[in-house]
Amino acid sequence: MSLAVEHDDLVALRRDLHRHPEPAWCEFYTTARLVSELETRDVDELHYGPAVLGSERMNVPDEGTLDEWFERAKAAGAREDILAELEGGYTGAVAVVRRGDGPVVGLRVDIDALPITEANENHAPADGADAYRSENEGWMHACGHDAHATFGVGVIDEILASEFEGTLKVFFQPGEEQIVGGKPMADSELLDDVEYLLAAHVGLDHPTGEVVAGVDGFLAVSHFLAEFDGESAHAGGHPEEGRNTVQAMAAAIQNLYAIPRHADGATRVNAGLVGGGTATNIIPEESFVEGEVRGETTDLMEYMDDKAENVLVSAAEMHDVDVTTERLGMAPSATSDPELVDLVAAVAGDVAGVDSVAESDELGGSEDATYLMRRVQDNGGYAAYVGVGTDHPGGHHTSTFDVDEASLDVGVDLLASAIRAVAADPPGQSDRTDA
Amino acid sequence: MSLAVEHDDLVALRRDLHRHPEPAWCEFYTTARLVSELETRDVDELHYGPAVLGSERMNVPDEGTLDEWFERAKAAGAREDILAELEGGYTGAVAVVRRGDGPVVGLRVDIDALPITEANENHAPADGADAYRSENEGWMHACGHDAHATFGVGVIDEILASEFEGTLKVFFQPGEEQIVGGKPMADSELLDDVEYLLAAHVGLDHPTGEVVAGVDGFLAVSHFLAEFDGESAHAGGHPEEGRNTVQAMAAAIQNLYAIPRHADGATRVNAGLVGGGTATNIIPEESFVEGEVRGETTDLMEYMDDKAENVLVSAAEMHDVDVTTERLGMAPSATSDPELVDLVAAVAGDVAGVDSVAESDELGGSEDATYLMRRVQDNGGYAAYVGVGTDHPGGHHTSTFDVDEASLDVGVDLLASAIRAVAADPPGQSDRTDA
Amino acid sequence: MSLAVEHDDLVALRRDLHRHPEPAWCEFYTTARLVSELETRDVDELHYGPAVLGSERMNVPDEGTLDEWFERAKAAGAREDILAELEGGYTGAVAVVRRGDGPVVGLRVDIDALPITEANENHAPADGADAYRSENEGWMHACGHDAHATFGVGVIDEILASEFEGTLKVFFQPGEEQIVGGKPMADSELLDDVEYLLAAHVGLDHPTGEVVAGVDGFLAVSHFLAEFDGESAHAGGHPEEGRNTVQAMAAAIQNLYAIPRHADGATRVNAGLVGGGTATNIIPEESFVEGEVRGETTDLMEYMDDKAENVLVSAAEMHDVDVTTERLGMAPSATSDPELVDLVAAVAGDVAGVDSVAESDELGGSEDATYLMRRVQDNGGYAAYVGVGTDHPGGHHTSTFDVDEASLDVGVDLLASAIRAVAADPPGQSDRTDA
Amino acid sequence: MSLAVEHDDLVALRRDLHRHPEPAWCEFYTTARLVSELETRDVDELHYGPAVLGSERMNVPDEGTLDEWFERAKAAGAREDILAELEGGYTGAVAVVRRGDGPVVGLRVDIDALPITEANENHAPADGADAYRSENEGWMHACGHDAHATFGVGVIDEILASEFEGTLKVFFQPGEEQIVGGKPMADSELLDDVEYLLAAHVGLDHPTGEVVAGVDGFLAVSHFLAEFDGESAHAGGHPEEGRNTVQAMAAAIQNLYAIPRHADGATRVNAGLVGGGTATNIIPEESFVEGEVRGETTDLMEYMDDKAENVLVSAAEMHDVDVTTERLGMAPSATSDPELVDLVAAVAGDVAGVDSVAESDELGGSEDATYLMRRVQDNGGYAAYVGVGTDHPGGHHTSTFDVDEASLDVGVDLLASAIRAVAADPPGQSDRTDA
Repeated sequence: MSLAVEHDDLVALRRDLHRHPEPAWCEFYTTARLVSELETRDVDELHYGPAVLGSERMNVPDEGTLDEWFERAKAAGAREDILAELEGGYTGAVAVVRRGDGPVVGLRVDIDALPITEANENHAPADGADAYRSENEGWMHACGHDAHATFGVGVIDEILASEFEGTLKVFFQPGEEQIVGGKPMADSELLDDVEYLLAAHVGLDHPTGEVVAGVDGFLAVSHFLAEFDGESAHAGGHPEEGRNTVQAMAAAIQNLYAIPRHADGATRVNAGLVGGGTATNIIPEESFVEGEVRGETTDLMEYMDDKAENVLVSAAEMHDVDVTTERLGMAPSATSDPELVDLVAAVAGDVAGVDSVAESDELGGSEDATYLMRRVQDNGGYAAYVGVGTDHPGGHHTSTFDVDEASLDVGVDLLASAIRAVAADPPGQSDRTDA
Repeated sequence: MSLAVEHDDLVALRRDLHRHPEPAWCEFYTTARLVSELETRDVDELHYGPAVLGSERMNVPDEGTLDEWFERAKAAGAREDILAELEGGYTGAVAVVRRGDGPVVGLRVDIDALPITEANENHAPADGADAYRSENEGWMHACGHDAHATFGVGVIDEILASEFEGTLKVFFQPGEEQIVGGKPMADSELLDDVEYLLAAHVGLDHPTGEVVAGVDGFLAVSHFLAEFDGESAHAGGHPEEGRNTVQAMAAAIQNLYAIPRHADGATRVNAGLVGGGTATNIIPEESFVEGEVRGETTDLMEYMDDKAENVLVSAAEMHDVDVTTERLGMAPSATSDPELVDLVAAVAGDVAGVDSVAESDELGGSEDATYLMRRVQDNGGYAAYVGVGTDHPGGHHTSTFDVDEASLDVGVDLLASAIRAVAADPPGQSDRTDA
Repeated sequence: MSLAVEHDDLVALRRDLHRHPEPAWCEFYTTARLVSELETRDVDELHYGPAVLGSERMNVPDEGTLDEWFERAKAAGAREDILAELEGGYTGAVAVVRRGDGPVVGLRVDIDALPITEANENHAPADGADAYRSENEGWMHACGHDAHATFGVGVIDEILASEFEGTLKVFFQPGEEQIVGGKPMADSELLDDVEYLLAAHVGLDHPTGEVVAGVDGFLAVSHFLAEFDGESAHAGGHPEEGRNTVQAMAAAIQNLYAIPRHADGATRVNAGLVGGGTATNIIPEESFVEGEVRGETTDLMEYMDDKAENVLVSAAEMHDVDVTTERLGMAPSATSDPELVDLVAAVAGDVAGVDSVAESDELGGSEDATYLMRRVQDNGGYAAYVGVGTDHPGGHHTSTFDVDEASLDVGVDLLASAIRAVAADPPGQSDRTDA
Repeated sequence: MSLAVEHDDLVALRRDLHRHPEPAWCEFYTTARLVSELETRDVDELHYGPAVLGSERMNVPDEGTLDEWFERAKAAGAREDILAELEGGYTGAVAVVRRGDGPVVGLRVDIDALPITEANENHAPADGADAYRSENEGWMHACGHDAHATFGVGVIDEILASEFEGTLKVFFQPGEEQIVGGKPMADSELLDDVEYLLAAHVGLDHPTGEVVAGVDGFLAVSHFLAEFDGESAHAGGHPEEGRNTVQAMAAAIQNLYAIPRHADGATRVNAGLVGGGTATNIIPEESFVEGEVRGETTDLMEYMDDKAENVLVSAAEMHDVDVTTERLGMAPSATSDPELVDLVAAVAGDVAGVDSVAESDELGGSEDATYLMRRVQDNGGYAAYVGVGTDHPGGHHTSTFDVDEASLDVGVDLLASAIRAVAADPPGQSDRTDA
């Protein structure tokens, strides 16, 4: 079966998004581009702006940064009427297609980019007359979210062209890289009636033609920022007059890594970015630790998070300084449901270009699609996180990452096929209702 | 001028005390021996028991230890009627001689011993038929307090035999080594009317024949005990169920030593005795730190003490364990008054056996005579800490420490002479009253 | 089928061993008792003394301690001719029964006890006229090794009474509690030809009548002792002259717990017993850390062990003190072979008194039977660790632990039946030879 | 006596220097301005370029920074022929006046500025038509070195106009604020024959009209930079693959502050500027500590410096990372010689505008004039550090610091008078030769 959507159209959309990588809560161009694209389709509802975010957003950039990206989107040609709805950083969108009585199936794709300067040489997006390297210098789609967003649009086209009976909701989620977008989007009412949810990711070290029907092994994660505030003093003249935040920070770091291991499973902790002070001869007044904790389960992550908070507060008290801690981002763990994983594996065999199907693989990292997966599962539904292989020359999060555009068709076909299969024969209906 | 007291009597008393070294609050034999000795003199008042200790005692041994030393004193022949007054560890004594209208002059000597096993060889007290090595194995007069107590009795004899006009009060202070006896004795009413106070120490690396008229450089000090209480758990099976006091202790130690230096002068900190846990595979439930802080001034010591307390409490919080801190002992800093130092230096030249007089020297350690010195000074009086040289084969606090008994006569003569000189021509009377 | 051995004989032996609990390398009475018992059987070889220990022993007690236990064993009636062979702490024994051409099957049981004071009340061994509470006050068979040793003797009796064709070797291993006996016994030549090895443990929270055919989840473990040696100094007078081992110890502790977690699986670390210094006012010259590291696999344990060694050495260098580290004990991880587990599970169903058979369970702790298991497996053989349920009123390693003596018969029957079944139809012969 | 030099000329020079503040090794405009000024005087030698720096310079900025300041100086009108000699940052100058057989007298003034943005309001240099606020935004003469350099030129004018018999050498020293210029200038041969050295500083919280004849209390100081280099890894996926520099940095910081106090006097330590890592989820590959140690004496500073180096190296080893340490700057302690201080105090009374003369004061900070002072003293000569009071509205090192220009005349007169007095009657000649 060939696709309804043209390969060239997928490529064109992906490349336009690739040229405009944007950070969390600043996906102004991206959202406006997707919305204007979808307005030309026969979708039943198209939500964007505050309506798609059901709870408070974490780690929203300051006004200056928001403005800068807003203006940049405008300058790049984003439609101003759409942009107006996104002001303040309310990015992301949800498209709904209603076709009869079948189940409500969701697809979640993410749309944000990374603070990486894209390679200029030996890198396809930077080559040739039709190069499409990042126009936002210092930022890059280095994890394939440009492909994910393209999957979202392509799947809508496929479903619209098919005999699908049911409701499709595609969630274009902002802020995955900083794990800030998953929670508010999961808290939106739009997810409430979703019975089946698929989330997708390209690559993950699988080549083009390989599919992972159910990715697992998400570590729950919490990012935090601790800011210490003390008092400076001349280090030679009056060391005792200072309240030394670097001492507090060092005590905190030593004891963060020493949080006891847990018998229930894997935990992690990292003080990934730290700093403090101003000059050799000044007792340091300000310091900070930006770090994270993880757990094999959400409980384990919360165990680490509670301990970390306590370490940070006690370290501050120990050196008579103040500390404020802020959650920068968060994601729970989640598990793909075997009922849905089996269905994906089954349809994958019939997708053109697929030559290998793995039942499962461990991500070994974190992802905030888990918020949406768990919400659906908590409501009695099913979720699966699907891997779509792609040859990627550089690793994820490196300056030479790129996707093999042949995998755009594979992803669209695979996801649309799975959605149709769900609608045709909803899996697990008998079992789950008992639970 | 020859002494009224016989050298042999001084030696006999000193050796008897030397045979019976006792720890703080357990100087039962020593106190009883001194009291029974003084009862044979024409002293006007002889105080002992709770009356000589004006405030709560720190670091009193447990009942079992008190009983053991009490029984040992009884077995060694201490008079039971005197012992009865000392029950519960109310050791120490004050003797008062009133002779006319002159000023009230105090002499403070200390009487306790150290937990050191006395040498058995190449050590005078252990040699010969009349050996007088410690009979309390494991304890030793290794800092010359046996000589100090002997000074006290000898001085009373000299004053009784002289034309002295005034009042003499000799304070036989318990518990100097653990800096616990100074405070309660200073808080006794008996010190209230003392206008001039001398304290004395033998040795201090000065040879027989040398006198230091005014020792200075006492560091204020505070001894503390911190006891951490957490929860044990199997270190392999459930590390997260423990509340680990060894981690708290380690965090405390690291940060105690890192308390900021102070521009106003020298400070010190030491975690001198620490321990925790029970077995390699158990998360340690109990740990402790016995330590000290010091300062060139009492303010500096208190600065350190406050910081140390905060470190200990915060380290406990950091690892979710409890901590209780207790003050084990304390002594302020103090300074010898030049008016009194000059007088001692002046009379020293005429004392038989003295061939060198130093105006001053730095102790570089701590001493709780400072409590009595400061009390007298706060009341408008004068105090001086006098060094009486003695050839000592081993260093202070070592198992071969011994005093040259010739210095017993020197000390008695020097101190009695100084006391008579004070009474004859009270120094500084015009000056101090203005202050 | 009823047992050849009498229940009362098993009980009598177990109780005699129970009365004489002994620590690692001091199992003099226990070894002599077992040897003298086995000399009355028709065993082909009976090894004891240095011959049963093929490599250097770790953590051997000092001579005084060895002597004390040696004399105690003599006083308790141990045969002096046997004791003579054990001098220096060469405890443990191996009994060999050769009956025809069948395979060589090993059984490993451990024989040492724990430093726990046995309960005096509400505790069967302490009750009644025939009480058999520990006669070595402060030590106790609180983990059932008295039952294990009894299993060993009982199984020999059963095999001798049976049609068994093959070779049985029973390893009575010393020093399991301190994980010191497994390695040297595994290194003995006596294990070299063993093709099948069973190890057994009573209890483990399984009631009488329950059997676990294959226990797994052994954490590899290493116990270490780090001794820091610095230089003392007066903490007030000359802090800079000290080389402070308590500071080194604290730095080590903080960083031991902070050794990075490992993605390959669970790790553990504990500084379970620490101490240092002598007095508040002395810079501490000596300190120590007795601790352990563990890993889900031996590689993970070794990762931790290398890191710990580096932390200890660097912490010493940081404070200019010396450190020596010593391995106190060690055990690798190990896995029960399914071929042997299946056989045990199969025969268990026919053992009188067994009413429940679990295929597997996780130990969640450590055990040095793993040394013997891995040695056999490395040689191409099979091993399984079998759990024999017993109602135990108190938990393992508590003062009220006791075994239900009905499980003595169950254990003997189960193990003897399994050994006979192995000889009758050696499992896995075709498979393993390919590997 | 009135000055030969005009007040307005002093003011004009000082203001021109004030407009062009420059950092260490970048004093291109300043040096060129001073040299071109002095070329118009009748000085006998005028040294600049590498010749005035006798040993390797510490902490030289990178080429880009040097170039930028070089070009800025050119653009500001500095003479290119002089600048050419300074290329590479060989700033500073020495002027020599030879007038007969008298002694060689040195004067040391410093010429560099601070990274402080000068105030724009309520600040004299920023007011009015003839404002002379810093033209190098972000840099400021906030410690009066513009006045010091002016002293140097004014003193030459006064000496040239006087009957002075002897040799005057004025050292215009670069890089005092970062304590990098003192050592190489002290190591220049030009200082070798200097028998008397004066160094001067304005302000120091003394008002206009007050003179401090001999400033003391310089803490010896060393600035260091430690750079840790490890290995990054994904903090969730493979924490064990990282070599974590933030852990090393934290261990170092904790133990730097815990370097034992020293009985010989005051010590200091500060980790004033620290940082590490890149992102919450990356094990930090790079970290740094920029810090300092100080001591009441040079020995004490070196004690701290050795300990700090050891802590940094051991902390790196502890976490298996590399560390390189670099000395950024250094200054010894020094003491003003009483012979010279007395002379300064004596002449000060006759200087117009001086209404108060303090014999001494404690600086309580650090200064690298001490290198030159000690070199002269080591050669048998005398040195004094003189304070010239000035009303300064803001404190030293603040954005509103300014000098009262009336003190320019006072300083020139005081220093020239002292230099003449030294030449007329060289102090201490008899005494020092014995030593």
